[in-house]
Amino acid sequence: MTAQGSSQAGNNLDPWYHHYAERAAGLRASEVRALFAVASRPEVVSLAGGMPFVAALPPDLVVNAMERVMREQGPVALQYGSGQGVPALREQILDVMALEGIRAHADDVVVTTGSQHALELVSKLFLDPGDVVISEGPSYVTAMVIFKSYQAEVDHVPMDEHGLIPEALREHIAQLRATGKTIKFLYTIPNFHNPAGVTLSWERRIEILEICRANNILVLEDNPYGLLYFDRPAPAAMRSLEQDGVVYLGTFSKTLAPGFRVGWALAPHAIREKLVLANEAAVLSPSSFSQLVISEYLATANWKAQINTFRGVYHERKNALLNALDEYLPELTWTNPNGGFYVWVTLPPLLNSKAMLPRAVKELVAYTPGTAFFANGDGQQNIRLSFCYPTPAEIRVGVRRLATVVRDELDLLETFAGTGSLDPVRTPGRFNPLPTDIS
Amino acid sequence: MTAQGSSQAGNNLDPWYHHYAERAAGLRASEVRALFAVASRPEVVSLAGGMPFVAALPPDLVVNAMERVMREQGPVALQYGSGQGVPALREQILDVMALEGIRAHADDVVVTTGSQHALELVSKLFLDPGDVVISEGPSYVTAMVIFKSYQAEVDHVPMDEHGLIPEALREHIAQLRATGKTIKFLYTIPNFHNPAGVTLSWERRIEILEICRANNILVLEDNPYGLLYFDRPAPAAMRSLEQDGVVYLGTFSKTLAPGFRVGWALAPHAIREKLVLANEAAVLSPSSFSQLVISEYLATANWKAQINTFRGVYHERKNALLNALDEYLPELTWTNPNGGFYVWVTLPPLLNSKAMLPRAVKELVAYTPGTAFFANGDGQQNIRLSFCYPTPAEIRVGVRRLATVVRDELDLLETFAGTGSLDPVRTPGRFNPLPTDIS
Repeated sequence: MTAQGSSQAGNNLDPWYHHYAERAAGLRASEVRALFAVASRPEVVSLAGGMPFVAALPPDLVVNAMERVMREQGPVALQYGSGQGVPALREQILDVMALEGIRAHADDVVVTTGSQHALELVSKLFLDPGDVVISEGPSYVTAMVIFKSYQAEVDHVPMDEHGLIPEALREHIAQLRATGKTIKFLYTIPNFHNPAGVTLSWERRIEILEICRANNILVLEDNPYGLLYFDRPAPAAMRSLEQDGVVYLGTFSKTLAPGFRVGWALAPHAIREKLVLANEAAVLSPSSFSQLVISEYLATANWKAQINTFRGVYHERKNALLNALDEYLPELTWTNPNGGFYVWVTLPPLLNSKAMLPRAVKELVAYTPGTAFFANGDGQQNIRLSFCYPTPAEIRVGVRRLATVVRDELDLLETFAGTGSLDPVRTPGRFNPLPTDIS
Repeated sequence: MTAQGSSQAGNNLDPWYHHYAERAAGLRASEVRALFAVASRPEVVSLAGGMPFVAALPPDLVVNAMERVMREQGPVALQYGSGQGVPALREQILDVMALEGIRAHADDVVVTTGSQHALELVSKLFLDPGDVVISEGPSYVTAMVIFKSYQAEVDHVPMDEHGLIPEALREHIAQLRATGKTIKFLYTIPNFHNPAGVTLSWERRIEILEICRANNILVLEDNPYGLLYFDRPAPAAMRSLEQDGVVYLGTFSKTLAPGFRVGWALAPHAIREKLVLANEAAVLSPSSFSQLVISEYLATANWKAQINTFRGVYHERKNALLNALDEYLPELTWTNPNGGFYVWVTLPPLLNSKAMLPRAVKELVAYTPGTAFFANGDGQQNIRLSFCYPTPAEIRVGVRRLATVVRDELDLLETFAGTGSLDPVRTPGRFNPLPTDIS
């Protein structure tokens, strides 16, 4: 029976059900996605999303850049461009990366439709069905969606307060290879990790690069938050230590605005050539208009001062979040990020972050359950709280509401203690994938 | 030996050579791509590219739309958006499609990063290695690059002056199925075909949809040029006749400007849901900024008058091209498109379009050799001439130069007649894939 024949026999409501590629089975709506709809109701304090606070960007900076671009380079801005991106912007991207210790050549930069699309293109280029991507556990939701969409498996290596644990990485590599698995790359977010909020130490950057070099594993370094540090900069990028074994991903979504969809990959030469071809196949060229506006902004505005403004906004909000947690939920533990958007919270034993979410939304506060950040069902005892978008006052209200929910859950638990599992989705014994010393 | 092991044994200069996915082998630089570099030299008249003449768009229309967007919706324009696209724009896209007879619901529209990305997402969703995509022969270069990047095969069905030949389609389907092949979809450009310049007749639209329905084959209707007709509109879109079996692709790249990278797919409901998930995985959301600027432009500018302006520009240029061909190259045959950007030219027997190209560029005229538009090596006797970007005067100069090249080639051929193959890449007997009555 051909595929066409079998599809005629399908009883699904979708007449094309049997026509999809095998990889389409991996494309499912994420838990975070469903949350966006809920959290957009104005009465809900959302500690769930990852939206940058773009209102901290003076609109005139953008309007002025746009006007100059249209006046001076209108026909270029409106036209198709190079599949690799605007040369002037690629040069300016070198200046941005230099702030994190990276020295590179503009030839090795590929501009993409947000760094998300760089992740997609790298995955398309490297992942065969059954391949393994190693990542931190927890890890970035929509990276894992991509890996699964290319039928790869995600293997989570644990972290502690200094980031990914090198010894655990060694063990995982050995175990995976012992079972015949093909490891294609290590996907890592070294700075102000999403969702864990921790930063990989300098010593571990060196050690992890050594492990990957020795094992011939490519490193995919995803660094959207690096410049948004609070007290002190993060250690230099892993790419600053190793050129041939690292594909580095950067973005303007957090230091300027995500609405332009402009990010980039910095890749070893041969990989970069293939990335350009994949980029051309996917979108012909990234938006000329968006690229030229950002290039003009970088050339004429004080973009470093603007990043400092963003850092101040997010630092204040992180403090508001931790202070509120101290005040309202002292019995929980959490990470203390030195930058970025996220705090990773560990609930008391037996609380289930996913099961608790509907009750939280009823109390008008939203968060992301920890399970969203694991490919293997872990994270049930964790939640991610975002401090990037709500104001300090809203954050305080949100945590107070969350405290009510947690108290009610604990009360319920006490009431039903000894009567068995409170909730059928709970799986006792897999509650706390992060070491308890993380906070 | 694991893949890691084999890569260590690799002697390629790229240390990651053995790490790429199997599909990466399909990503090669197209012939058209290499041409872009050559054709961009100012002294060359390029009849090769497919760049719209964006200078025909008054810049103020765009600047005004941008300013209003930033003033009234700045924080939305700068932020992430929905993976499906801005709702107001999806409603306006219905008005655009209504001009070609399509009635639809905004729920079934997915905004993409140019219609190229819709093509990529549909391919990712449907194509397993070894699957077959049926397309016209010749077909759009970068569609075939995508199909190959998902390890699918392209099967070309011949066209004549009325477009794809239904009887040939029937035969190809039967032959493919007889050899056990899985046909995933028919990829077709019914209006002002790229590169063939022909338009599928109304009767054939009906017949081809019947064939695909009877054979359970999805139709991917790619319609970038439909509104750019010259004397009379093309027949209504295939999607106007059939909802459940057609994924329709549209774009603002030709009716407004490609620099924004905004296109769309209109898909049956279940496919649309999966396309949104694939879009989110690939880029999180299409550019809010680009979408809002286009939405504002559609709401406030006379966009239909602007399309009429474009139609006038391209009509004049097509006439210039055909008049020049009549005058300078009367011994050739060519199609007479009623819209779009392209004329498909058939060279005299034994001339080889690819081998002739370097000589043409030396004479300061560029075209695209027909072989670029076939997955199977056909098209050696054809060239595609684009009339979209150069002025009528430039077109005339370009064709005069091309005539010199063709004459020189024919002279050479006469001189060496009887001495065997003039050029090692020639494969006599596969010269003319389009029936000779096409012009």
